[in-house]
Amino acid sequence: MKQNAFYAQSGGVTSVINASACGVIETARKRRDRIGKVLAGRNGIIGALTEDLIDTSAEPASAIAALRHTPGGAFGSARYKLRKIEDSTAEYERLIEVFRAHDIGYFFYNGGGDSMDTAHKVSSIGRRLGYPVTCMGIPKTVDNDLPATDNCPGFGSVAKYIAVSTMEAALDVESMARTSTKVFILEVMGRHAGWIAAAGGLAGSGPSQAPHLILFPEIPFDRSAFLARVSDCVARNEYCVIVASEGARLADGTFLADSGTRDAFGHAQLGGVASVIANLVRSELGYKYHYAIADYLQRSARHISAAVDVEQAYAVGRKAVEFALEGENAIMPTIVREADEPYRWTIGKVALGRVANREKKLPRHYISADGFSITGRCRRYLAPLVQGEDYPPYKDGLPCYATLRNEPVARRLDTAFVID
Amino acid sequence: MKQNAFYAQSGGVTSVINASACGVIETARKRRDRIGKVLAGRNGIIGALTEDLIDTSAEPASAIAALRHTPGGAFGSARYKLRKIEDSTAEYERLIEVFRAHDIGYFFYNGGGDSMDTAHKVSSIGRRLGYPVTCMGIPKTVDNDLPATDNCPGFGSVAKYIAVSTMEAALDVESMARTSTKVFILEVMGRHAGWIAAAGGLAGSGPSQAPHLILFPEIPFDRSAFLARVSDCVARNEYCVIVASEGARLADGTFLADSGTRDAFGHAQLGGVASVIANLVRSELGYKYHYAIADYLQRSARHISAAVDVEQAYAVGRKAVEFALEGENAIMPTIVREADEPYRWTIGKVALGRVANREKKLPRHYISADGFSITGRCRRYLAPLVQGEDYPPYKDGLPCYATLRNEPVARRLDTAFVID
Repeated sequence: MKQNAFYAQSGGVTSVINASACGVIETARKRRDRIGKVLAGRNGIIGALTEDLIDTSAEPASAIAALRHTPGGAFGSARYKLRKIEDSTAEYERLIEVFRAHDIGYFFYNGGGDSMDTAHKVSSIGRRLGYPVTCMGIPKTVDNDLPATDNCPGFGSVAKYIAVSTMEAALDVESMARTSTKVFILEVMGRHAGWIAAAGGLAGSGPSQAPHLILFPEIPFDRSAFLARVSDCVARNEYCVIVASEGARLADGTFLADSGTRDAFGHAQLGGVASVIANLVRSELGYKYHYAIADYLQRSARHISAAVDVEQAYAVGRKAVEFALEGENAIMPTIVREADEPYRWTIGKVALGRVANREKKLPRHYISADGFSITGRCRRYLAPLVQGEDYPPYKDGLPCYATLRNEPVARRLDTAFVID
Repeated sequence: MKQNAFYAQSGGVTSVINASACGVIETARKRRDRIGKVLAGRNGIIGALTEDLIDTSAEPASAIAALRHTPGGAFGSARYKLRKIEDSTAEYERLIEVFRAHDIGYFFYNGGGDSMDTAHKVSSIGRRLGYPVTCMGIPKTVDNDLPATDNCPGFGSVAKYIAVSTMEAALDVESMARTSTKVFILEVMGRHAGWIAAAGGLAGSGPSQAPHLILFPEIPFDRSAFLARVSDCVARNEYCVIVASEGARLADGTFLADSGTRDAFGHAQLGGVASVIANLVRSELGYKYHYAIADYLQRSARHISAAVDVEQAYAVGRKAVEFALEGENAIMPTIVREADEPYRWTIGKVALGRVANREKKLPRHYISADGFSITGRCRRYLAPLVQGEDYPPYKDGLPCYATLRNEPVARRLDTAFVID
């Protein structure tokens, strides 16, 4: 029996989530004997709830192929978490209603832990409502915090961006230090786990090389130890490069970003950890500083994505389809590391129930004893993930990113569904 | 007569200033009949004043060649402006004393307007003191504000970085807008001229494409016009991407970055224009925002330098040596545009006296009537400057940037010179 497939992107996008979409759609197109059209949710799961579906079969093969080198979420993503089944049966029933109306037998959900939870629930409610749907999670998160997979597509490219940017900015600061900036801070993502901050550590290979300090969410910020290290570093090297996770926090759990000065009305000062750290460095040590906040640039920087990350993102999309056609259900393809050097990996699988709502933090043994840098083990883990360059094509000096038609599928239901 | 050459880097570095150094040193090495060693100033002109010279002849050809793809200033730069001759004869006399002691007959100064002024003065004081030195300026500035040259090496690569980053972040924000971030702000360099901000305009080609607004230093910030545009843009497109120059200012000249809230002690709030704009957007329009501050990342991002910029940076270094050997003095090589499309350029020259201490602002006709975007003329000017990719070599996923030995030259003077 041939049924359509539904694909949706969820949560914060990455520079390679579209490579997973490419893997899903290209693989489905090769299996027209089993899969009809791939319908995508406009703005993720919201597109399914509101019956706002995109007909990806209207896109030429060249546009689908170009997804492999296009950042962002080509069909729109959403930060929308379905509630518990018992609190919101209507949402799940609506999904099944839409799937039934469009003859959707496969649900591919490309996201992080919350999305795996949703896919898992859709699988069980479909069965319960007499409309079984094959549900596959496809891992995606720059935060690298999904359990059960050695690493997560999206992370390697951010890691490469942060490592390269740290190297480059360090060369800049080093050359200016004699008369100008002595301390440079790069604020990076990762509110709950220090994987991205750790990746900054790949920029140098010894204590005299930048980054000289990394601030991890996993290590409570120790003001005096920090200031002593910065001061010592400037004395030795004439400059100091710091990679600071946006999630760096005090021992009581307060984010450094929230510990800054308040304005006249008592509102917390805008600006994140970088400005707080910079303020501290200036007021306590008197050094001239600069800081950069990579923000969305880091997770959309397809121009410097890691080739291995692109390959893995494509592979988890492709394998999700293949697993589904092999009769698997309620699983997520995983990346399995077979060897560090030379790096070898393969695709495995894990039950969605084992992934949902669990966060993988940076292990303590990946952080040096003093809490300010990465260990050799961490380096061995990270190094393979930034390997290879996979540049997008350029025209007139700018990347050629895909623009899809995103043609809507005609609605078949006469009921609307309102999103809060 | 064969004499040594002195080369120094000045002011904020760029991703291609070392390509100019490469051009100088490689060309000088080919002309060993006329030029002895190239001695570099450690930390720019400070190295000359303190007789802290680097012997570049100790570097293998491969290391010098690698300068072409290495960001930062390989010999160290300095923010150090020599005073007027009449106020500080001692400094100029000291330079000539060091040059005489090391048999330096050529002075290559790689910097912006201030440096051209210094090179000009050294030329005249050398003559006056009976030790004539051939003085050549080599243009360098990300700000693109030097007069007499069509563009300035360093700018094209920042322009490409900002255009590419704006494209990429815009794809990210567009995919998140339905449920999350609606306004994204990218803060870029250019305190006095809007060239870099204008480059963000290359990311889109019509009013519905990002960036939807650009804030230029040349256009006084109009709060209500700005808010109306952002609100309108979000209504039309569901999101809004803003490129904001760090030099954006109010009609009275106050930088927006300095107009934010003050802390409990009355100190201006840290953080630049992006946080001020973000605060305004949130408080007046209620939109969720994100902002990135590119800071040093933009000017050190050799991984995405424009090939044409690298070529031009090398060419002005090479031509400075060739001009010197042809008997020219007190000039700066310039980039002369011969055609927009296809872009053709050549190297010209200008007297240093005509460059010194003059700033080239973004012309009003490069900015749209409403002050929020670039015109077609501006686009024709900018587009050629970001052309081509010139990727550095990579090993294990990270760029191979040059590390020089920077061996010191033995001192020949028994007097020290103290820098303030």
